[in-house]
Amino acid sequence: MSNEIVIKVGKLLNEVRNNKPLVHNITNYVTVNDCANILLAIGASPIMADDIKEAADITKISSALVINIGTLNERTIESMITSGKKANELNIPVVFDPVGAGASEFRNETTKKILEEVKISVLRGNMSEIKFISGLESSTKGVDASESDMESVNDKGANVAKNLANKLNCTVAITGVTDIISDGKRVAILENGTKMLANVTGTGCMTTALVGAFCGAGSDYFIGAVSGIAAMGICGEIALEKAGQIGTGSFHIAIIDAISNLNSEIIENMVKVKEI
Amino acid sequence: MSNEIVIKVGKLLNEVRNNKPLVHNITNYVTVNDCANILLAIGASPIMADDIKEAADITKISSALVINIGTLNERTIESMITSGKKANELNIPVVFDPVGAGASEFRNETTKKILEEVKISVLRGNMSEIKFISGLESSTKGVDASESDMESVNDKGANVAKNLANKLNCTVAITGVTDIISDGKRVAILENGTKMLANVTGTGCMTTALVGAFCGAGSDYFIGAVSGIAAMGICGEIALEKAGQIGTGSFHIAIIDAISNLNSEIIENMVKVKEI
Amino acid sequence: MSNEIVIKVGKLLNEVRNNKPLVHNITNYVTVNDCANILLAIGASPIMADDIKEAADITKISSALVINIGTLNERTIESMITSGKKANELNIPVVFDPVGAGASEFRNETTKKILEEVKISVLRGNMSEIKFISGLESSTKGVDASESDMESVNDKGANVAKNLANKLNCTVAITGVTDIISDGKRVAILENGTKMLANVTGTGCMTTALVGAFCGAGSDYFIGAVSGIAAMGICGEIALEKAGQIGTGSFHIAIIDAISNLNSEIIENMVKVKEI
Repeated sequence: MSNEIVIKVGKLLNEVRNNKPLVHNITNYVTVNDCANILLAIGASPIMADDIKEAADITKISSALVINIGTLNERTIESMITSGKKANELNIPVVFDPVGAGASEFRNETTKKILEEVKISVLRGNMSEIKFISGLESSTKGVDASESDMESVNDKGANVAKNLANKLNCTVAITGVTDIISDGKRVAILENGTKMLANVTGTGCMTTALVGAFCGAGSDYFIGAVSGIAAMGICGEIALEKAGQIGTGSFHIAIIDAISNLNSEIIENMVKVKEI
Repeated sequence: MSNEIVIKVGKLLNEVRNNKPLVHNITNYVTVNDCANILLAIGASPIMADDIKEAADITKISSALVINIGTLNERTIESMITSGKKANELNIPVVFDPVGAGASEFRNETTKKILEEVKISVLRGNMSEIKFISGLESSTKGVDASESDMESVNDKGANVAKNLANKLNCTVAITGVTDIISDGKRVAILENGTKMLANVTGTGCMTTALVGAFCGAGSDYFIGAVSGIAAMGICGEIALEKAGQIGTGSFHIAIIDAISNLNSEIIENMVKVKEI
Repeated sequence: MSNEIVIKVGKLLNEVRNNKPLVHNITNYVTVNDCANILLAIGASPIMADDIKEAADITKISSALVINIGTLNERTIESMITSGKKANELNIPVVFDPVGAGASEFRNETTKKILEEVKISVLRGNMSEIKFISGLESSTKGVDASESDMESVNDKGANVAKNLANKLNCTVAITGVTDIISDGKRVAILENGTKMLANVTGTGCMTTALVGAFCGAGSDYFIGAVSGIAAMGICGEIALEKAGQIGTGSFHIAIIDAISNLNSEIIENMVKVKEI
């Protein structure tokens, strides 16, 4: 598959590897180690800092900011907002992962507050989370997408992404069996990945971190989102091949291995993307 | 070994895999990633949430609550109590891991407070922790059981478990070389496992999380405790066989692999359990 | 290579394995699981506790205290100082890892405060961090050493370490392609390791934790620092050989495997150390 978007993704990976963008993460303590390691594996440099006394200072020296509300707490919400505003001021891309939006009032309010006060570049979530943010009926069960919501990823999904992208004036990425990415004009459909990715915690968070790395290395955040999600999907397939039979622990490690070996050639050979 | 209890454990594993119970964890930041991954590996769905503004809301939608005081802090104690009370109100099982009880006044007071304010379904600890809670002389050294305490797991151990179970009106599980589980009437002795489990951090926490998954899938919490502890012991043996020679890093990953492949047949073939 | 320092390192490893020193860590949530596992792998016993209500109590029962400011927050700074003072009072060694010093005012002030209020036994950092603390011009970029700073590890580096060691009256260890350790009189140069260590998050934090284990098992903290850093360098080489081709995920696991298999013979055969 060698169309324009594939070439852009491959080029952007080279940019990440050459420029080692510093990616500031304000994230959860469950998957933070994996997020740091996946960022190193793709060629970026991770920094985690969430205290209000330094959050904006760290954002200032970074190429991208990733906000993830996986283990939300009152102490860090203020840091998320402050860092987000600093990023906006300096034109640094902000990638937002609304983990579990819909699961509690606290997550809902925080999601709303972040979207109101910070200009987001890329919003990445599963179908349950994105439907919730869109004001549509969703059936969130914890932090994983509900099965009924996963099945709704089709043409209707493309409209959900496109409409929300236009409403929020950002790129919206819905990940699942099929991934849908839209900046309100363009819509990309990605068919890479494997169901086994849902059996390892943090593959969503890692995808968001990767999107941060790609957005930190280029100015087209739609391509940044496509790149990060394609990278995870492709490496999920490679990891499945290498270690899927062994178990989810080895599969987890094989994902990071695959990301560390990813190059533009592998992307060109394996990516299943189309613009619709 | 094909007695009644073995069949119950195998059946309960099938329930976990079929029903994917949502397990709410308020736990420590050291082993939280492993706890999430082991829950996914056994077929459950993990959610970690510890802020007071959402703790009870998350408990409300969960099938089990796991409280672990491994890295205790003032911010989350209130969440533990509030979530515990909500779980009690809704008849959701509460599994409590009093990590390091006996090692500091703060842990001791918190353990006492939790046991006073929350009705626990399963209390799982090492012999040092359980002896401390029983008001017996123990020799806690940090978060690992002291060697002298590990050796006391025998008939005397069965009495410790049984007495405390009656006192707290819950199931008490003491894990070590031999595991003892009692609900005050029944007592099960498990002989699975390997010493190497003590060379990986969080195998205790992971066991507690597994107990949470099994209790979230059935109503007999004594069987839930036996199941979670048997699963870890059996998978420790499988991991030892596969990766013990390689080192503790590979052994760690092999535990999660083995849990992800565990089924009722493996349990029937490998479990060493007796009721006394 | 079988000189005096090599024999001391080998002997100290045996002390760690025999005495299982309890190492109290107040550290960051990114790499904390790896720090606990590397401590178990080397034969020590880890405990993580950072709440002010128990920090000093935990320090009191420990053989070493490790302070790491990787994800600094206001809540734990007070615990770091209080635990540090308790350690000083009881002659327990304190190992300090000033992660990201130079990257934000908050980290700079905290580093300064810790160095003023706590008597440090070993300060371990990368060249950017150590130069910053020395009051020299550095070019910190996040939590990783800048490339220009990494290249300055040579004779000039030995002077930086020696001067700061004399100023702070402690052992200073600068890790990088070449590692330099000085207690103000002695200077050791270590040439073990591999660049790939920089592709896994927390290899610096793990090294600091290992230094804590070795300092907890002996009274010569210069040798403790050399030992911890040598252990990581050697095991990095072993891991590179075993898993470097596979990817950074497998390399990460292979480091922990190698530490768990490390013995004085391997050290004698592989260590590249000289005193200058």
